Amino acid sequence: MAAEQEAVSNKRVILSNYVTGFPKESDMKITSGSIKLKVAEGSKDTVLLKNLYLSCDPYMRWRMSKLDRPSFVDSFHPGELKFWILHIQNYAKDDLVWGSTGWEEYSLVTAPQLLIKIQHTDVPLSYYTGILGMPGVTAYAGLYEVCSPKKGEYVYVSAASGAVGQLVGQFAKLAGCYVVGSAGSKEKVDLLKNKFGFDDAFNYKEEPDLDAALKRCFPQGIDIYFENVGGKMLDAVLLNMRLRGRIAVCGMISQYNLEKPEGVHNLEQLIGKRIRLEGFLAGDYYHLYPKFLELVIPAIREGKMVYVEDIAEGLENAPAALVGLFTGRNVGKQLVAVA
Amino acid sequence: MAAEQEAVSNKRVILSNYVTGFPKESDMKITSGSIKLKVAEGSKDTVLLKNLYLSCDPYMRWRMSKLDRPSFVDSFHPGELKFWILHIQNYAKDDLVWGSTGWEEYSLVTAPQLLIKIQHTDVPLSYYTGILGMPGVTAYAGLYEVCSPKKGEYVYVSAASGAVGQLVGQFAKLAGCYVVGSAGSKEKVDLLKNKFGFDDAFNYKEEPDLDAALKRCFPQGIDIYFENVGGKMLDAVLLNMRLRGRIAVCGMISQYNLEKPEGVHNLEQLIGKRIRLEGFLAGDYYHLYPKFLELVIPAIREGKMVYVEDIAEGLENAPAALVGLFTGRNVGKQLVAVA
Repeated sequence: MAAEQEAVSNKRVILSNYVTGFPKESDMKITSGSIKLKVAEGSKDTVLLKNLYLSCDPYMRWRMSKLDRPSFVDSFHPGELKFWILHIQNYAKDDLVWGSTGWEEYSLVTAPQLLIKIQHTDVPLSYYTGILGMPGVTAYAGLYEVCSPKKGEYVYVSAASGAVGQLVGQFAKLAGCYVVGSAGSKEKVDLLKNKFGFDDAFNYKEEPDLDAALKRCFPQGIDIYFENVGGKMLDAVLLNMRLRGRIAVCGMISQYNLEKPEGVHNLEQLIGKRIRLEGFLAGDYYHLYPKFLELVIPAIREGKMVYVEDIAEGLENAPAALVGLFTGRNVGKQLVAVA
Repeated sequence: MAAEQEAVSNKRVILSNYVTGFPKESDMKITSGSIKLKVAEGSKDTVLLKNLYLSCDPYMRWRMSKLDRPSFVDSFHPGELKFWILHIQNYAKDDLVWGSTGWEEYSLVTAPQLLIKIQHTDVPLSYYTGILGMPGVTAYAGLYEVCSPKKGEYVYVSAASGAVGQLVGQFAKLAGCYVVGSAGSKEKVDLLKNKFGFDDAFNYKEEPDLDAALKRCFPQGIDIYFENVGGKMLDAVLLNMRLRGRIAVCGMISQYNLEKPEGVHNLEQLIGKRIRLEGFLAGDYYHLYPKFLELVIPAIREGKMVYVEDIAEGLENAPAALVGLFTGRNVGKQLVAVA
């Protein structure tokens, strides 16, 4: 027990400065602190966590800017880097939990009610940063709750091999839809077609005319678009939506690093086609997490759903892993193995 | 009876050519045909109508372009000009009806099931082109059905003194909301505040910074935006929407005459604020027409709702009246008294 009271090294990744434009590794830095592996006497609402995996997600980019107006999340301050959805271990009790904490080896968490206890451990623990974590709930809620897919409908997913996109495609297939995805390399397009069961896929970087690409893939038009990228892609999609189409706006990764986002010109399409364009966040749907697990855990066990991860090793590689999201370097869900 | 079989003059307004840019009076022309004031024997599904009032509506601009892809309405062809929602009279039976026919003095209608019989005639008959016609159903459905206003919510209406906007504001007040409207002249702003009961109003042409104008009128933000104009206004509104805001997209009149619509840059706001942006058409809501009348007819009789019309006299003035919509020349609902 004496050993537990000794301070050990606690490596952290923090924000060096507010980010403008594309984030760079130098916008973050690695610091080395120390931590006592024991919670102080009487701190009954504090738990000590050893972090196993951490998640890299595109929305983190928002918090790295100095926001000039209120948002649903605050800006980080330089010196701070606290990202949602790590896979972490309650060091004292040996429970497995997931939730939000800092990018560091050990964390003292003072609001443990925000951590979710992991019940199923026969699947890879890293899945709780992806298919069984926030990205999984995002795909599930965005497709099933926001878009209400019906059998036979035409579904398009952009950034389709990413943490969320690969799941949206698989959920849409489970719902009996025809699914097409786009991604930014041949390797990713192959994954969509051969691993995730998309009906068709294309490399958007090789399509000079996105409108024409969508017309080729969806001669009948698109009922549901799961929006991950924004900008020109959204404009092309609007031209190809069908009557009473639904667009779940999950993210707009192509826009996050631009000083001024691109203009979207075809919103007039919303009127005649009665299109619904709706933003959403996974955080509003955690009450569905038990129902979500009832679907996904058996699907994973039976091989009916698969998940591709891109795992960086060690906290020192976390900045590069996060930065790589914005150039599409990752193949599948990007995460970092900390311990 | 012999007189009825004689042909009489039947003036018509037709499209001269497909329109690009702002419509001009010369894009339409007046022709003079003739018509026998009797339906041929055995034509049991044909009715002869004498047209009393016709409606000028912004959406008509869409049909005056040569559309390059399918839409919910077809393009007109030059030589044709058939607009929805006239106020017309079944000449033979002396019934009063409203519906869609040509811009002409008399019409032979072969699908009379599309005409709606007028039950209440103690209100001005011209109202069936506006508050009791398509614009009325548009305001009612867009506000109540698409946006579900709750008491105390903050509602913003653009083009607020127009055929639809003046009604949206009044419906929102009936629902207990705080309502602000914008329009393009002092006269219109005065109408909003003093005639239609808006809580506040501003002249968008005198606001160099629309974002700042909205912040001034809505320090708490906007829950519901009834979108009639598009472009820069929508961008400014997106910055001022509140969490779980709803935007009913009724029209985007500022964009209809542009070769390429302006870009909308702030759609990223949809995500964090979980905003729903939804296009709609009155045509989907006519099943609510009886319920709508139950609300509106007594409100008109009791002076709880008012309606301002801008009436042009004579078919020969119809082209100028329609063109005037796009420069905001009209004050209130633009219509034409034909007979």
